This record gives sequence, structure tokens and C-alpha cells, in this order.
Amino acid sequence: MARIVQKYGGSSVANLNLIREVARKAVAARNQGNEVTVVLSAMKGETDRLLKLAKELTPSPPLRELDSLISTGEQVSVSLFAIACAAMGEKVKSFLGFQAGILTDDHHQKARILKLDPARVKTELAKGRIAVVAGFQGINRQGDVSTLGRGGSDTTAVALAVALNADHCEIYTDVDGIYTTDPNVCSKARKIDRISYEEMLELSSLGAKVMEIRSVELGMNYGMPIHVRHAHSPGDGTVITKEDPNMEKTPVRGVTHQINEARVTLTKVRDEPGVASRILSIISKSDIIVDMIIQNRSRGEDGFTDLSFTVPLSDYERTMELMRAAREELGAEGALGDDDIAKVSIVGVGMRNHAGVAATMFQALAAEGINIDMITTSEIKISCVIQKKYAELAVRALHDAFELDKA
Amino acid sequence: MARIVQKYGGSSVANLNLIREVARKAVAARNQGNEVTVVLSAMKGETDRLLKLAKELTPSPPLRELDSLISTGEQVSVSLFAIACAAMGEKVKSFLGFQAGILTDDHHQKARILKLDPARVKTELAKGRIAVVAGFQGINRQGDVSTLGRGGSDTTAVALAVALNADHCEIYTDVDGIYTTDPNVCSKARKIDRISYEEMLELSSLGAKVMEIRSVELGMNYGMPIHVRHAHSPGDGTVITKEDPNMEKTPVRGVTHQINEARVTLTKVRDEPGVASRILSIISKSDIIVDMIIQNRSRGEDGFTDLSFTVPLSDYERTMELMRAAREELGAEGALGDDDIAKVSIVGVGMRNHAGVAATMFQALAAEGINIDMITTSEIKISCVIQKKYAELAVRALHDAFELDKA
Repeated sequence: MARIVQKYGGSSVANLNLIREVARKAVAARNQGNEVTVVLSAMKGETDRLLKLAKELTPSPPLRELDSLISTGEQVSVSLFAIACAAMGEKVKSFLGFQAGILTDDHHQKARILKLDPARVKTELAKGRIAVVAGFQGINRQGDVSTLGRGGSDTTAVALAVALNADHCEIYTDVDGIYTTDPNVCSKARKIDRISYEEMLELSSLGAKVMEIRSVELGMNYGMPIHVRHAHSPGDGTVITKEDPNMEKTPVRGVTHQINEARVTLTKVRDEPGVASRILSIISKSDIIVDMIIQNRSRGEDGFTDLSFTVPLSDYERTMELMRAAREELGAEGALGDDDIAKVSIVGVGMRNHAGVAATMFQALAAEGINIDMITTSEIKISCVIQKKYAELAVRALHDAFELDKA
Repeated sequence: MARIVQKYGGSSVANLNLIREVARKAVAARNQGNEVTVVLSAMKGETDRLLKLAKELTPSPPLRELDSLISTGEQVSVSLFAIACAAMGEKVKSFLGFQAGILTDDHHQKARILKLDPARVKTELAKGRIAVVAGFQGINRQGDVSTLGRGGSDTTAVALAVALNADHCEIYTDVDGIYTTDPNVCSKARKIDRISYEEMLELSSLGAKVMEIRSVELGMNYGMPIHVRHAHSPGDGTVITKEDPNMEKTPVRGVTHQINEARVTLTKVRDEPGVASRILSIISKSDIIVDMIIQNRSRGEDGFTDLSFTVPLSDYERTMELMRAAREELGAEGALGDDDIAKVSIVGVGMRNHAGVAATMFQALAAEGINIDMITTSEIKISCVIQKKYAELAVRALHDAFELDKA
């Protein structure tokens, strides 16, 4: 017997038949002797439908009202799920965010959970019932409905698993689990059985779409195993858990690519203290988030250098305007931009103990004639900026080079 | 300056354009210096859509879950209304039932308001803002969402008007006001300017559809004037208020008809104490509500009588089965039924002071060759059961006989 939290996404509850199927799965898990709490997203398309209504009224609706509006999507899902269970003769109770004791801060549309006291959920579980909780939503201290932002239902599920002291949290989705890379890009992509929180965090940050960062972070902070599985297919999925000796001994766990950044280079700036910080403070004042930053060595002895950084593609035009406007003040020769770039990354906690991983990466790219523009590394990842047109080729080359298709 | 509660029904907020129009009306009222609280129903069709989903899962969904499901309809309406106001540059805040302090009992689907403490609504009004409250819903002591049943949004509006100590409550609907009779039946039907609570209650009980009984009762109990108006047309509507000397001096205020009852007659039962109560206790044990009851005088000297009563058409078959089964025990000769009946009624507080109203009614029906099967009266109404096919003719004849087309 285990205490389980199961989360099903919008595509898993997109219509009444799917809701029935999900209800059957939850009941089956309960009948196996488990304590089962279910967290649901809105039926697929519902959140977008509601957002569209709001945006038709005004491009910038008040966020408090938007939260109250879109939170109805999850409310409908959990009510229908409970009704589907009742139709099967099962006792079940649904809970909205506030009923499940999910207290958040005041940041509508991207609220963070401050406290979670699922007393009512516990009471139902103790009676042998299934509890179903609306994902994505909570309530703030003023008693207003809040929503948790992207991946919010995953966050609800993991946070609830922690608060209920569950054995693990199951995230049911429309893929089989976490893959070594995007199967749409590389046909040799292989499902990973176990992955560490740290690796999953890096993969999520670097473009893997299955799990949002927040819920993985939450799992990591509280040591809650997260089990990613397909909602409507059998298969063991992927367990996201603490790094442990049972994990495959491999230097690289996965390969990702992103094409949502652009690079900006300020040429021939003075190579003296404070220059980089002056440049970057202009950017950050505009709430633009800089990802990679590279300052080349001084050019010979002339005391000048080039400074490159990447920003989200959506902020590229604005960044270029800022840099052109500030070029003279910064004493730069020019402000160059390139939005035709991609970032390919390899991630793995095994890197720590394997020498030569970077060398293998650079060789694999070089062998395909791919030039590397920028490089950043952390303890468990290496990212390279390359020309966008080589992105998929680079992913396949790296997947081969590290033999990720082999278990 | 007045303190006003405005309630708009589902057809008044059926789409974004109508929601915008309703928002403009509320803002206009506020700009005239009034304190305005708005109560909304779900967008037309939304409650039915949600109910249909539930009923597809099971014919008898758990009522707690059904309440949580259908209450989203009003939640969507008030959020969109608030967003529409914001789009016009207005400050407004939406409130769900629990946020408006509407505490109800535990009877899901037909909850009654136990307490109403709209502290947050008052705070917003005091800031000069418009408050918009989800109709039809509240929260019970367990913290579960409840709904108030038919006409629930009207009840919310009147109860809120009472709790806010408002000057009056405006019910915006898709008709001009209360009519002397159904304009679809009688082209001479005339809008009534002022009507007493008592008369409105009787008219509602006897088939008038504009106002539900509960909200009128609530208005009566607390002396809250209710102003029924068309949502999207000008015109003064109808004020439901205390009986006062300014009301038109007329014995009859309105005529209604209902075709939702059937008559059951037990023939030749003993005319002795206890017979009627034995019959009716069989009915009431099955939760069937009896409306009219007529016991004829004894037939000559034989000590037998006939007992007739009416029940809702939906309970007719069941009632006949019960009576056939109990016929022998009750010592009745036969159990006859007739579902081909209609009830026509005249209502008016002026009846109290006018002799001959009943005589005029019976003469008017007789003049059209309409036979009267049963009659019941109260201080302010007279109802007659007639053959169903004469219902509309009877309404027109009575409307003419009491000259209701004349102000």
C-alpha cells in the first residue's frame, strides 16, 4: 500500500470518455490498496477558450479577474471526474484550491504556494475515498482565487504529494516519459527510466518540454519522487528522483536544443572593470533576462574586447534598440545582432566524474562541420551556440557521440 | 444618490457584446451618483451545457459535485463583466458567493441562505467602485459550494440588497415587466406599474414566470422594493412593493393559467372523519404535493361522498397507481383520473374590498360555455379547474371581464 498523488493533464481529460478512463485508473490504483489523490488540469482547450473571451474584451485584463475566470476550467474537470467516479459507484470528493488548503501569495497568474494544509483531503483519504483536487489554483490571504502559472497543475500535484507525505507523485501526460532527446528530431531517442532532479532541471531549462522547472524543483527540495507516465498507454515511464547508484552509469543523460534566443555582440568595448556590468544593467532595467554572457580576451594589447550575450528572441528587437542607443555611452564600436542561432546542450550528473565530455562534444560538432559561436558550462551541462540551421543535425550527432540510444 | 443592486439574467449576458452593454448600464448608474452592486446569472445556455455533461456521465450525479460544476457558469460571467468594466477604464471587483459572504445550509441544488455578510462588497462600494457578485451560489459551513436552485440569482440579488441596506433591487430580464396576463395568450395584456408582494407571490405560484417565489418572499419579509425591468430596452418596468394607497384601485391585478396539474377523484368514499386524511397521507408519504382538495357534500342520505384533489402532472401516474392500490382499503368505489385539465386564476388584493368578484369570474366563464370542475379561493385569489382546451379562452374572457387592459 502506498500513498499516491496522480496528476492528469488537459489532454488526458479532454472529453467525457477520457475523464471516465482516468477515473477508472484512479479507482484501480485505490482498489490495489493505495491512498489516491488526483490532481487535474482543465479540459484541453478550455483555458484557451476562456483566455480568448477575456482578450476579446481587452488586451490587458485585470489579473485577479483573469485568475477567477480561468480557474473555472479545473473546477469543471474535478467536478466531472467526481461525477464519473460516482457513476461507477465510487465515493469521491472534489476540492477546489481553497478547499484543499492551498494558500498562495498575491501574484495573480504566477502565484507561489505559501502554505498547503490539505486537512479536508486527508479526512477523505482516511475514509478510503479518492480525493480529486483542482490543479493550477489556490487562494491568497485576501480570499481571492489565484493561479500558479505555466505547469501549475504539476506544481499543485508535487506540493500536495509533499504535504500529504505521499510515497510518490505520478504525472500522467501524453508522452511515455522523459527521452534522451526530442524524438521528433532524433529517431534514436530513447526513454530514460530514472533521472536525477538536477538533470531534469537542466533539461527543462534547456528546452525539454515534458516537465516545468518549478515542480521539479519542489520535488528536489522535498525529495519527492516524480513518476512521469503516459496517461493512456501502459509502460513504466520515467522516475525523477535523487541521484542514486542504481542510475545508469553514463556521463550524459540527454541532449536538448532551443531556438528561442538571439545573440547580441558589442564590439570593441574598453576592457576595463565595470563595462560588462554597465551594459547588462541597461538590459536588466528593461526586465530582459540575459542567458549566456561571453567576454572575449582582450584583442592583443589594445585594451579593447568584444562582449556577447544572448536574450530571449521575443526581446531581441528591443535589446538591439537599447544597445544602439547606448553604444556611444558604452564606448563600443558597434552593436551586432544575430537571431539565426540555436543552443544545443548536453546534460548529465555523470559529467562530474568523466573527463573529456566537452572534448567529445566539440569533436562531434566539428565532425559535422558545425562551428561553435559561444560555450557555457555548469557542473552538469555544456551548452553551445551554433547556427540555427544545424540545430537538429547537432542533436543527432551528439546523441550518437554519447551513445544515448544504448541503455 | 441611491444604493442599488442590479441583477441581470442569463439572456442579458449571453455574449461579450451583451456583457459590455450590461457593464455600460452599471457604470452609467454609478456615474449618476449611485452605489451599484451587480448580480449576474450564467451566460445563457452555459448551465444547461454543464448539466448535460454531468447527466451524460450519470443520470443522478452527486449534488455537491453538481453544484461545484454549475457554479462555474456564474463565475465566468462575473469575471468577464469585471474585465469588460476594466476595458472601459472602470475599477470593479468580482465576488464569488463565498467571497460575498453568502453562507447557506447544506441542501445542494436548493440551498437556502443562512447568513449574508457582504463585508468585502461594502469595502469596494465605499471606494466608489462597482461590485459584481456571482448569483445563484453560496458556500455552506463545510466550505462546499452550494447553489440556490431555480431563480437563485434573483434570490442572491434581493438578499444582497437587504444585507447592503439598499434602496431597491433591480431585476433586469428579457421582458418589460409584470403583465396582467401572459401576452402570448392575450394580446390585450397590459404591463403593471406597481404590484404588491402578496399579489406577485400569488401570480408566481399560479403560473406567472417572470419572478420566482423565493425572491419575492424575501423582498416582502424585509420590505425591499423589487424593480423588474427589461435589460436592453428603456421603460419603467414594474415595481413590486408594499401594498399602498397609490396602487391602482382594482379588484383584480392579473390572470394566470397553469396546465401542469392533473385531477384524481376517489368516488363513493365514506363521508366520515379521517377518510380525507387517510387518503392524503398515502400521497404525502410518497413526497407528492397536493394542491387543490375538494370534498363534495354527501350524496343525499347514503353517507358517501366523492373526494377530488390535484397533483403535479409529473406525479400523476404514480398517484393513480397509489390510489388504485389503496382503493379497497379506503373503501372507495373507484379511482378516476383526469390529466386534461387547466387551472385559471385571478389575483388581486382589491378583492378583499370588492364584492361580487367570484360571481363575475363564474359568469365570464359560463358565458363562454366553460364548465368549472373545481374551485379554490384565498383572500386575494380565486382559482378554477376547467378543461384544458379552454385555458387560453378562459384567460382572455377573464381579462376582458375585469377590464385589465384599462389602467
